[in-house]
Amino acid sequence: MINIALLGCGRIGKMHAATIVRASNARLAAVYDPVTAAAQDVGHQFGCVVAASAEEAIAHSDAVLIATSTPTHADLIEACARAGKAIFCEKPIDLSLARVKACREVLKGFGKPIQIGFNRRYDPGHRAAREAARSGEIGEIRQIIITSRDPGLASREYLKASGGIFKDMTIHDFDLARFMLGEEPVEVFATGSALIDPTLAELGDIDSAMVILRTESGKLCHINNSRAANYGHDQRVEILGSEGMVISGNRRAHNLERFGSGSTGSGEPFLSFFIERYAEAYALGLESFLECVASDRTPEVTFEDGEKSLAIAESANLSLANHRFVNIREIAD
Amino acid sequence: MINIALLGCGRIGKMHAATIVRASNARLAAVYDPVTAAAQDVGHQFGCVVAASAEEAIAHSDAVLIATSTPTHADLIEACARAGKAIFCEKPIDLSLARVKACREVLKGFGKPIQIGFNRRYDPGHRAAREAARSGEIGEIRQIIITSRDPGLASREYLKASGGIFKDMTIHDFDLARFMLGEEPVEVFATGSALIDPTLAELGDIDSAMVILRTESGKLCHINNSRAANYGHDQRVEILGSEGMVISGNRRAHNLERFGSGSTGSGEPFLSFFIERYAEAYALGLESFLECVASDRTPEVTFEDGEKSLAIAESANLSLANHRFVNIREIAD
Amino acid sequence: MINIALLGCGRIGKMHAATIVRASNARLAAVYDPVTAAAQDVGHQFGCVVAASAEEAIAHSDAVLIATSTPTHADLIEACARAGKAIFCEKPIDLSLARVKACREVLKGFGKPIQIGFNRRYDPGHRAAREAARSGEIGEIRQIIITSRDPGLASREYLKASGGIFKDMTIHDFDLARFMLGEEPVEVFATGSALIDPTLAELGDIDSAMVILRTESGKLCHINNSRAANYGHDQRVEILGSEGMVISGNRRAHNLERFGSGSTGSGEPFLSFFIERYAEAYALGLESFLECVASDRTPEVTFEDGEKSLAIAESANLSLANHRFVNIREIAD
Amino acid sequence: MINIALLGCGRIGKMHAATIVRASNARLAAVYDPVTAAAQDVGHQFGCVVAASAEEAIAHSDAVLIATSTPTHADLIEACARAGKAIFCEKPIDLSLARVKACREVLKGFGKPIQIGFNRRYDPGHRAAREAARSGEIGEIRQIIITSRDPGLASREYLKASGGIFKDMTIHDFDLARFMLGEEPVEVFATGSALIDPTLAELGDIDSAMVILRTESGKLCHINNSRAANYGHDQRVEILGSEGMVISGNRRAHNLERFGSGSTGSGEPFLSFFIERYAEAYALGLESFLECVASDRTPEVTFEDGEKSLAIAESANLSLANHRFVNIREIAD
Repeated sequence: MINIALLGCGRIGKMHAATIVRASNARLAAVYDPVTAAAQDVGHQFGCVVAASAEEAIAHSDAVLIATSTPTHADLIEACARAGKAIFCEKPIDLSLARVKACREVLKGFGKPIQIGFNRRYDPGHRAAREAARSGEIGEIRQIIITSRDPGLASREYLKASGGIFKDMTIHDFDLARFMLGEEPVEVFATGSALIDPTLAELGDIDSAMVILRTESGKLCHINNSRAANYGHDQRVEILGSEGMVISGNRRAHNLERFGSGSTGSGEPFLSFFIERYAEAYALGLESFLECVASDRTPEVTFEDGEKSLAIAESANLSLANHRFVNIREIAD
Repeated sequence: MINIALLGCGRIGKMHAATIVRASNARLAAVYDPVTAAAQDVGHQFGCVVAASAEEAIAHSDAVLIATSTPTHADLIEACARAGKAIFCEKPIDLSLARVKACREVLKGFGKPIQIGFNRRYDPGHRAAREAARSGEIGEIRQIIITSRDPGLASREYLKASGGIFKDMTIHDFDLARFMLGEEPVEVFATGSALIDPTLAELGDIDSAMVILRTESGKLCHINNSRAANYGHDQRVEILGSEGMVISGNRRAHNLERFGSGSTGSGEPFLSFFIERYAEAYALGLESFLECVASDRTPEVTFEDGEKSLAIAESANLSLANHRFVNIREIAD
Repeated sequence: MINIALLGCGRIGKMHAATIVRASNARLAAVYDPVTAAAQDVGHQFGCVVAASAEEAIAHSDAVLIATSTPTHADLIEACARAGKAIFCEKPIDLSLARVKACREVLKGFGKPIQIGFNRRYDPGHRAAREAARSGEIGEIRQIIITSRDPGLASREYLKASGGIFKDMTIHDFDLARFMLGEEPVEVFATGSALIDPTLAELGDIDSAMVILRTESGKLCHINNSRAANYGHDQRVEILGSEGMVISGNRRAHNLERFGSGSTGSGEPFLSFFIERYAEAYALGLESFLECVASDRTPEVTFEDGEKSLAIAESANLSLANHRFVNIREIAD
Repeated sequence: MINIALLGCGRIGKMHAATIVRASNARLAAVYDPVTAAAQDVGHQFGCVVAASAEEAIAHSDAVLIATSTPTHADLIEACARAGKAIFCEKPIDLSLARVKACREVLKGFGKPIQIGFNRRYDPGHRAAREAARSGEIGEIRQIIITSRDPGLASREYLKASGGIFKDMTIHDFDLARFMLGEEPVEVFATGSALIDPTLAELGDIDSAMVILRTESGKLCHINNSRAANYGHDQRVEILGSEGMVISGNRRAHNLERFGSGSTGSGEPFLSFFIERYAEAYALGLESFLECVASDRTPEVTFEDGEKSLAIAESANLSLANHRFVNIREIAD
């Protein structure tokens, strides 16, 4: 039985807690949140220790799930590493690539599993798409199109702290692109606009983005993002290969189709946001981590994966500013 | 070049005229319609003889296309046969099975091609469904579901003269069922209601029907009909076999899908009626007839096919009246 | 907190156990199964009393979930009623309508909630279909088409004890038909064949069935069943109304579509059987029961619903034997 | 009756000829092709004059349809203008923007309709997409995704003469983008690779391309092209607006869906190439031109539209070479 400490009892933390208690090889040992009431809430519901500090929670555990706010991630990773605990950390590791590199130095020699929460890799549809690409079913990959649109604009507070669209939102798609391509992207072009809320320009941010990635061998990947799609959380991955194409499509709560005098085949709006859309993916990602901890294997999504996607995001920022194709090595090395 | 006489210049006659003039192996030689203006209209548009009588039109031709009103079909078939002309006759041959049998006697020894206008057999989707059934792709056929619904109730005049839903509307589905099953149905159960227009009961007719057919070997076929479906002309054929299922679906004018806050994936209403829905099928059916005439082959849809579907329709009427499974042989022999 | 006794720890019992432990207003108090090992298994996993008899388990509870074999259902319902416990009983109540009527007599004056496990009513898609019918969105209901096909033939043992296709399989569809129609069916026509396994005839059973139901006001409902559909568990409900149509469709594990030189738009096979296909429905049905127990309300699916569907199944057997439309009142009263 | 001269009797010329003869307000007066046999073929089939020169054909006409090879387009446009004939010219006007500008000078003061053959604007699905955008149905346009992939690589001969992917293939998508956006793109980024046939690099060409366009107000448009998609001609347009999204999808010859043990919902490969895929669009585009000629109105797709898309294509070439966002005004003015 793996004893888990959960740090952070917000929306995502609570969801992870429910997954942990259902797992047959783990138990929720302790929770911590700087907002004590939030921690008590979870502790009460699932009957576990409510720790007075992150350190105390970590001490109770074999493995730690970090679901606190982004600025605390790197410090907590280092604290866990020092304590010798396996680590599951929500994305991103940090908004600063320099901080991530420093953290990587601290992790040198750390022997326990560490997994970054790029949950979309575990979505059954996206995963089947990648399997079709890896198995040769669709031949050599030539182009990938990732569509990733949120159902509605987040709050100003959230956006201010987000690090900008590329580090907050597109970073998921950069990870998916790397996961699907089977090759590192080397060049990035990015552009965008503040079309949903023009005042985002005051934050130096955009809400509508288009990106192109290119690998060494010439494979191409397009990503489009929007902070608001009124028909639901739009999450599609399309892979064109020499022998076929696959598209991992959107999900609805059920498959009722409506036919009337004005239209035919109408379905429900898509599942409205990531907690619902990726519920299965979150659970499968955590299960995969628990298996790695149980068998002491390296997780599929590593610290380096977190770092690489952040480097692409920084490259995208540079491209956006300079209106040119940016070689990721300018940033990453 | 096959010279065609067209008898009947109504909606269906005009459509056939346009198909004939596009054919590379046929020409529209003469037209006739009891309503002279209708014949002149077609004659003028396509530059052909406007005959003063059906006989005169027949005399100008190698083959005759009969698209007049139902009560004239059998007489005109006999006139064409006596004149030794190939015959394409719109369905049904007649509303009376006795009249059809008498006509069949007259045709004994007639050596030219005669085709009945069961156009749905030529619909590319329905045809591909049958090909999947015949080729063994879906294994042994077990069940067929035919959905056939008109977009809106026809006029009282039309319905009065129609011979009732089974002879007017379901007869197409009886023919499709025979075409798809690869075996003759031997038993029929039919029921129905006047739900769209309850006053149809005054005509002894119904507007909503459900039928089950069963073949000697036990294969089952369900047909459902409605005289009014507000989302368009609903025409589906589903075949369940031991190795799979195929469904020939509905058609839209184009493939635009709409996604909004209330629904996703909405398409256009289905093509609204048989002229649009089966435009390709009408053309392919006539092309097939022209090939048979050119090469003196027996058409795919024979006079006997017309007779057999009428016998099933009469059996369905008997079933509806008597609330029991009717053996078609009671009627047909 | 509602204390639940679970009787029967087979496949369905285990699934219910997992739903109970996730519920916030219930706990699994005791389990019983004539196969002691099965009960111990569940008791161990969820930490509850493993009772030595059904009576002992019932004594530990506020409500009882009966998931034992069909022949024990009516006796256990009566035992629970005598003990004054709320009852959730898997379908069917019994294979004999006479036994069900006798059980109903015993229940006279019983004041606690009793719910029959017709889970399909709780499927989100089917439920949305019915909501569209009830809300007036599709106008007056005219026709319903229910397609219900299992992925593969059950074992001979299972089939021998099943009571025949109408009482075992179609009974779910009879309940759905009643749920959707908003009116009682009064007439039944049923036919069928042993096409998948001709030796089923030895058991007096069939594996492919077609049924038509008709209500007093003339609404029509068609049901088709097959014991084997190689593409998965095929579960569709279509409702045609005066103002539109809705179709509750099949479900796949994910939405990957494949496009290649031979085909486009290929998805996964449908979820293979009822435990997966109706996982959500089972959970929602039990939740609904728990709410009824908590608030002492009458459940949505009553004992009478179980009795009425059984009466339709018996009528279908009579129709199959006599080749005629059977008035359900011949059987039910 | 508008007398049409058809210049060029290759594949596209023949298709136009068949559309002209079906039109009620036009007749095919004369045809010319440098390959005399091709012209005779068409002349024989449709019974029209086979001219000995383009000039002779032009002289016989009220309007001229130019479907010859690209290098002859601008000269023939000028010849028609001098002769005072209405002009329908296949795309592109020329591969050189300088030549197109010179031609525009010649056309100054020319008063007859001149239409460029950007047929995709007339595709019913694409047109409905644009209508949804223009009508306000989907609110303010934010992003457009155009997917345009050929079913298979063209011959080396064709590619050598094509002017490169952006002027030959993407030019259609540049026109569609302008048509859909309702605003001129001002910046272009383009990249690509020779992934299908690496030896294309010898021609300085690519076979896989990705482009991003941005308008003054910040609207974004992505185009992806591939010279080979083994599942058919992939032609999709997606428009995301503030109030919804529309997608104009691909087309199949029929709507048969197949369900088997390995997959469900499989449809036919998409219509294999532009003649089939855009058959309706070609006919509707020509009909629109004929109406403009008949009523002396300005066509929807003007000479300037041809010039502007060519300017975008040249900008894309510059972007590809320089790895940067290119302002189209650098090229266009």
